[in-house]
Amino acid sequence: MSRTLFHACHAATLDPARPGVWGAIEHACVLAENGRIVWIGSEADLPADRADGAARMDLNGRWITPALVDCHTHLVFAGDRSGEFEQRLSGVSYEAIARAGGGINATVAATRAASLETLVEMAEARIRLLMRSGVGTVEIKSGYGLDLDTERAMLLAAGEAARRAGVRLRRTFLGLHALPPEYADRRADYVRLMADEVLPALHGEGLVNAVDAFCETIGFTRQETNIMLEAAIALGLPVRLHAEQLSDQGGAALAAGHRALSADHLEHLSESGARAMAEAGTVAVLLPGAFYALKETKLPPMDVLRDLNIPIAIATDLNPGSSPLVSAPLAMNMACTLFGLTPADALAGMTRHGAKAMGVEGETGMLRAGLAADIAVWDVPAPAAIAYWIGLPGPQRLILAGEEVQP
Amino acid sequence: MSRTLFHACHAATLDPARPGVWGAIEHACVLAENGRIVWIGSEADLPADRADGAARMDLNGRWITPALVDCHTHLVFAGDRSGEFEQRLSGVSYEAIARAGGGINATVAATRAASLETLVEMAEARIRLLMRSGVGTVEIKSGYGLDLDTERAMLLAAGEAARRAGVRLRRTFLGLHALPPEYADRRADYVRLMADEVLPALHGEGLVNAVDAFCETIGFTRQETNIMLEAAIALGLPVRLHAEQLSDQGGAALAAGHRALSADHLEHLSESGARAMAEAGTVAVLLPGAFYALKETKLPPMDVLRDLNIPIAIATDLNPGSSPLVSAPLAMNMACTLFGLTPADALAGMTRHGAKAMGVEGETGMLRAGLAADIAVWDVPAPAAIAYWIGLPGPQRLILAGEEVQP
Repeated sequence: MSRTLFHACHAATLDPARPGVWGAIEHACVLAENGRIVWIGSEADLPADRADGAARMDLNGRWITPALVDCHTHLVFAGDRSGEFEQRLSGVSYEAIARAGGGINATVAATRAASLETLVEMAEARIRLLMRSGVGTVEIKSGYGLDLDTERAMLLAAGEAARRAGVRLRRTFLGLHALPPEYADRRADYVRLMADEVLPALHGEGLVNAVDAFCETIGFTRQETNIMLEAAIALGLPVRLHAEQLSDQGGAALAAGHRALSADHLEHLSESGARAMAEAGTVAVLLPGAFYALKETKLPPMDVLRDLNIPIAIATDLNPGSSPLVSAPLAMNMACTLFGLTPADALAGMTRHGAKAMGVEGETGMLRAGLAADIAVWDVPAPAAIAYWIGLPGPQRLILAGEEVQP
Repeated sequence: MSRTLFHACHAATLDPARPGVWGAIEHACVLAENGRIVWIGSEADLPADRADGAARMDLNGRWITPALVDCHTHLVFAGDRSGEFEQRLSGVSYEAIARAGGGINATVAATRAASLETLVEMAEARIRLLMRSGVGTVEIKSGYGLDLDTERAMLLAAGEAARRAGVRLRRTFLGLHALPPEYADRRADYVRLMADEVLPALHGEGLVNAVDAFCETIGFTRQETNIMLEAAIALGLPVRLHAEQLSDQGGAALAAGHRALSADHLEHLSESGARAMAEAGTVAVLLPGAFYALKETKLPPMDVLRDLNIPIAIATDLNPGSSPLVSAPLAMNMACTLFGLTPADALAGMTRHGAKAMGVEGETGMLRAGLAADIAVWDVPAPAAIAYWIGLPGPQRLILAGEEVQP
């Protein structure tokens, strides 16, 4: 049996059963057995022989938090869109770039052309960047394949890359991410293909933990989205939704009607959409990296979310187009700076609430007995400093399931 | 004699004598002798026995750039202002925080109270963060002491921290950063003290490479600023200026009148101020971290700067209040995203033009024979990707004066 006592630290547990916004314990220690926390509290309260025989890791007075949870990413993709970034800043229009095969179509073409091993290696490098920034649990979506083989390859690559890097993973099928060029005149056929054939096949292979769709004027309609969400529900899969990013499509209410784990983006969320989310227990996932990169000005309705006590998660949205953001603490800083979250709410968003948005709140996202010993060790004088610094590289140490990892 | 051939790479030299926005050389190599570049070009063009006997470092096909230059920081300070960040986001007003002794006064009090060794250790940690992000040359300002002993301690700490970390340094005296509380009713006395006593004393100790001031409604007037700049000129020191950050005070024209190395911030720069800068050869230093953190909306006059061919530098402005930004590539991404620079202009801003703003363009900031072998090695498919990623940790390797450093 593997047993380790992590001690000489202060803990921001993010456990709402503890007092204060951080659920803080000063002079704390955490006892892990076989990957799980079995005891956490003040070092002075540790029963005399409770940790006998355990290995001990002295954390030198640092602050610990739950390892971060990045609940919304698109980090499996091939190709390089930095050239488009350069073109746009040199005055080339979005339209001209799209006409030349750029935008998401460029990523789809590169991803379809890539070998599985290439996808794995590129994804692993990005997962390691997130881990260096403190992430211990990541969600990865498909959605740059848009055909059976490439959607499968993306989910396989996600699994293998996460295994090599040692991160906790959930995989989301996002067949309705974009309409591929070959279906330009056959929208309905594409939706049915994804809902009736591709999703069941990939689910049958054990590759899918949840189903998502992009409900937007430039994505899929509410009706098309509903076909996919119903297919997911029929298979017993939980759903999530890209909703109200650029306009109010009623996606949040649709998702809530299917008891969605989360609705994501939400800049254009209506009050009625928010009420539906509150009733369904749907998490609001805010993605400030996309807001920043797209230079959006319409803020998510923060007051409404707060008034209705909707849990707010924060994620990187790591993707090659609208959010090439590879740092979880920077997502937290942006959530504070751009959306006005407090540092404690930003950290809850990147731990406990992120876990809920992924359906893994029984596994990770808090420092509490019974959950995984997923711990980030930060060289900061106070936990607020994690969100205060802009561009902080990440924690000093990252411990997953009780073992230190080296991303 | 130490000789190393860095080879098997592509080089974005940022040398304007070479073609293209990057001054790029594909399949490049760089020969360094005793810390300086003695040959750079295409590997195929390296004369047959030119590198005989040199050590060889294989860069595995990566892109190299000049090590980054961060020409505007305030990174020597004690204390922790993350609590203020938290308070503001929890609804406490700036005024209430200032009344409680917060804001810059909190940093001044903590810096005055800190030992020299504490200042050195805190500064060294921040320098190492910048180095991890690619920085090989840094400017550090005084200005949280506001008395002779603490201003001296800050400049001494900057020197010792830079020595320990192994970074190239220039130190700037910023006595006119804020009016200390004890001089609240004696502004003129404070200005004369700094200009007539503190600056000459610290210059006499060899601690000052340049002189700066904060010309702003909440800082010092144009007239007060001029007293300091004239004192600097009388000592033969180059000047720089915090100008037109929050309002147009005519600071840029004042600085240009003294042939300033740079005028910094410049969101409210007038066209006449820009013309004066262009005539004087004064660099425009843009600080997107402060723009971001303060949620400013008024952009620097980019078109005017471009039309007048004013060199644009980019810097982190690393400081505990308005820009706790510790990543040079993130400053570049912000310069692109927020100010519309191209990735090549952002990199020029953080290399060649940053060096000019610091007066070290004869030492570093380009990959060119005769300059220091200060090289950053990036794991990117194209140099534009350095500014494209949001939160990129930094280069794979950093080489300063021909030697690899481990920040």
